Amino acid sequence: MSTVDDLIAFQRETEALAQIAGRLEWDQETMMPRGAAEQRGEECAALEGVLHARRTDPRVGEWLDAAKPADAVQAAQLRHIRRSHERAVKIPARLAQEIARVTSVAQGIWAEARAAEDPAKFLPTLARVVALRREEAAALCGGGALYDALLDDYEPGATQASIAAMFDGLRPRLVALRERILGSERTPDTLTGHFPKAQQLELSRRLASAFGYDWSRGRLDLAVHPFSSGSGHDVRITTRVVEAEPFNCFYSTIHEVGHACYEQGIDPAYLLTPLGQGVSMGVHESQSRIYENQLGRSRPFTGWLHGQMQDMFGPLSVADADAFHATVNRVQPGFIRTEADEVHYNLHVMLRFDLERDLISGALEVQDLEEAWNARFLKDFGQQVDRPSHGMLQDVHWSVGLFGYFPTYTLGNVYAGCLNKALRAAVPEVDENLSRGDATPATDWLRTQLQQHGGLYEPREVVTRACGFAPSEGPLLDYLEAKFAEIYAL
Amino acid sequence: MSTVDDLIAFQRETEALAQIAGRLEWDQETMMPRGAAEQRGEECAALEGVLHARRTDPRVGEWLDAAKPADAVQAAQLRHIRRSHERAVKIPARLAQEIARVTSVAQGIWAEARAAEDPAKFLPTLARVVALRREEAAALCGGGALYDALLDDYEPGATQASIAAMFDGLRPRLVALRERILGSERTPDTLTGHFPKAQQLELSRRLASAFGYDWSRGRLDLAVHPFSSGSGHDVRITTRVVEAEPFNCFYSTIHEVGHACYEQGIDPAYLLTPLGQGVSMGVHESQSRIYENQLGRSRPFTGWLHGQMQDMFGPLSVADADAFHATVNRVQPGFIRTEADEVHYNLHVMLRFDLERDLISGALEVQDLEEAWNARFLKDFGQQVDRPSHGMLQDVHWSVGLFGYFPTYTLGNVYAGCLNKALRAAVPEVDENLSRGDATPATDWLRTQLQQHGGLYEPREVVTRACGFAPSEGPLLDYLEAKFAEIYAL
Repeated sequence: MSTVDDLIAFQRETEALAQIAGRLEWDQETMMPRGAAEQRGEECAALEGVLHARRTDPRVGEWLDAAKPADAVQAAQLRHIRRSHERAVKIPARLAQEIARVTSVAQGIWAEARAAEDPAKFLPTLARVVALRREEAAALCGGGALYDALLDDYEPGATQASIAAMFDGLRPRLVALRERILGSERTPDTLTGHFPKAQQLELSRRLASAFGYDWSRGRLDLAVHPFSSGSGHDVRITTRVVEAEPFNCFYSTIHEVGHACYEQGIDPAYLLTPLGQGVSMGVHESQSRIYENQLGRSRPFTGWLHGQMQDMFGPLSVADADAFHATVNRVQPGFIRTEADEVHYNLHVMLRFDLERDLISGALEVQDLEEAWNARFLKDFGQQVDRPSHGMLQDVHWSVGLFGYFPTYTLGNVYAGCLNKALRAAVPEVDENLSRGDATPATDWLRTQLQQHGGLYEPREVVTRACGFAPSEGPLLDYLEAKFAEIYAL
Repeated sequence: MSTVDDLIAFQRETEALAQIAGRLEWDQETMMPRGAAEQRGEECAALEGVLHARRTDPRVGEWLDAAKPADAVQAAQLRHIRRSHERAVKIPARLAQEIARVTSVAQGIWAEARAAEDPAKFLPTLARVVALRREEAAALCGGGALYDALLDDYEPGATQASIAAMFDGLRPRLVALRERILGSERTPDTLTGHFPKAQQLELSRRLASAFGYDWSRGRLDLAVHPFSSGSGHDVRITTRVVEAEPFNCFYSTIHEVGHACYEQGIDPAYLLTPLGQGVSMGVHESQSRIYENQLGRSRPFTGWLHGQMQDMFGPLSVADADAFHATVNRVQPGFIRTEADEVHYNLHVMLRFDLERDLISGALEVQDLEEAWNARFLKDFGQQVDRPSHGMLQDVHWSVGLFGYFPTYTLGNVYAGCLNKALRAAVPEVDENLSRGDATPATDWLRTQLQQHGGLYEPREVVTRACGFAPSEGPLLDYLEAKFAEIYAL
């Protein structure tokens, strides 16, 4: 075997072990008995120790030094392995294991504090998580910004400066659009009624199928905070159900199906290699968000969904399909990011970006977080946060140490805007098929243009290749302005 | 830290990783999408590679050589670690990983062949599994019998000679008892009716609670072949449902609860150490079988169950509680081991023991297995096997390579007979409480006498300590003869 073959064979087992670590997280959020939390922390730490030892194995460095890639695919494999190796060797094994242990247990503590509406129960844990991630960032950053070192793990190539520039490009037109919408005379109807859990889940399954989710390689379960998990032939999704608010479940499902279809759509030749998973969280979110919004909240698709809901639940309080489309896309300030409309969504992300950047830089202490959150929310959304689960306790991310993750949601939205523009130009029949509940012309194009490549190209590169143009904020803003001008007769 | 502390800290991570491997098996049998089977094989092989490397780590040998245990607990820890290390170093890593990979995938192939009633679909896989386990046994046996080397993994200290002697001690009185029962004039009623799945599962949960299963550290799911999984604070059970045959579900559940309560009952100080799990499969089966049979199929408990079933399902076809007890304990030849009455059960095990011993020694080829099974079944049970799922395809064990496991069921029955004798002498109020659906006086005694010790004592030793006498076949046979004399008026 060549050096490259040795390295890739070694990496194959590392990737398989990383899949196991992901499956443990899935289990923790969906199946694990609550009394197992501490033990699970030990298990996660042990597995992280194994992964860290493999990533920092001196042989990996030697193989990388000696390896001569035969083609672009091998070159990409080596690029990923090198990045992972160079990152891992900077982090002490003790720290890597401690982060795994603490964040595993922290999740349960966050969930309890959230249920009890009691931030004080969570703050000591959050302080510990922040301290560990700061320590990790300090080991990684080489004198640069701590936050950049964390961000780079989710979005290679992005920096807090590039993210801030993106937000600067979005905010003025988003705020202006919001003002025009909130000042308009139209108010979409509210959907009222009772939508039983079992039927919501049944319709969720239909929605997943409509978007091409492969059930033979996945499954759907309930979780407090919906997520998608796994790569290759075992890609699982989760959703949640509120019986008075069916869109929560349906659009969470479609969002996670976007993530899952990306993973399922990757070239099977890349299975258990560094190319066999989504290339970055920004690109991942581009898939979840285009499925959820540009496709799932489009007039053709909501028309089909309207019919499905009438079949499933009987007559709806919103009887007209156009009115239903407006209801699905209703713009209003609200506390919860995951339930936010497309106009407010990125404002939620900007708030988190600024706060987490300050937590990581040390400018903000965790004990001051709630006050900072609430003040900022009042400023940006004009509302006083009425309870912690509507404020700083709403998201799971910080409990599991995901600092630097939030901006990738907006990056994903920006990429989704670009991909949607290119898709519409390339595949004119998208809407006609969506109106019949068939998203496959759209998802086939996304698979061919982007998903199948997995980690072959750099994040920005794969979006540029798929679109045929360099991504920017423009297409997303154009799309939002056009869409809401129609709904709100602006 | 002392050498012992270093060794036990290292072992702690190994135990945590072994727990993860067990959780993966649980997932495979309960949750995994079918398309993930091949990938899962790779994941299991990768994790087995890690475990094998840790068990064979030269530092473990050095620590063991230098370690001076401070007390009996540490001495027991070291004994287990030494046994595991000495065993592992004889097995090449390649072989350990290949066994993990092949048996992971084989399970799905077995399930498909069983559903299709087509042994030919399974035979090539079975041949591969047999060949791998023979290779492993050859590496381990040091010139002794191949089968003994495998048996030792499930029941340290047992040999095929000791097992054969146990069967010789059982068979004559069991066969004689069976003949008397089948020749008697009494025929217990058959329970007929439809018992919906959801209600069977609800009653299963009540049964698990009645036996003291701790739900905060476990959960109940469905599986093709019921099993219990995990140690410490995450011990999960599975059952299955046939809507016409509720006893299948109920007694599978109680059986698995017995296994699970053993794991949950171990001293928490042993968590993630070699003492933190059941000491052998024979002792494990003693717990599952005493819960299922001597307690769960007793007249007091079936009286309570009868009431519970009437509450849950309405009037039963067997209206009288004494008649119901006879129905639960009805003796009749049948194809399926897991559904066998207490008299026939061990005859099923003897059949498997003889066949698997011959498969491992090479005296029987897998292509001749079906014929050998069916001939032996006709001889022992007087019935012609009517389909493969009633014959050689009924059990999952061989597909996952568990050669040497079956005899531990009968060993467990023998131990259960002894434990029951000692329990009845020590705790006179057992029956009175069972009649109210409360098994805790019995399970508390078992926990105190046996379960809490985990791996502290050798298998036979812990049973002897619990009983106050050396185990033998006598108490089981005495119990069976007395019980069925009453039911069948012999």
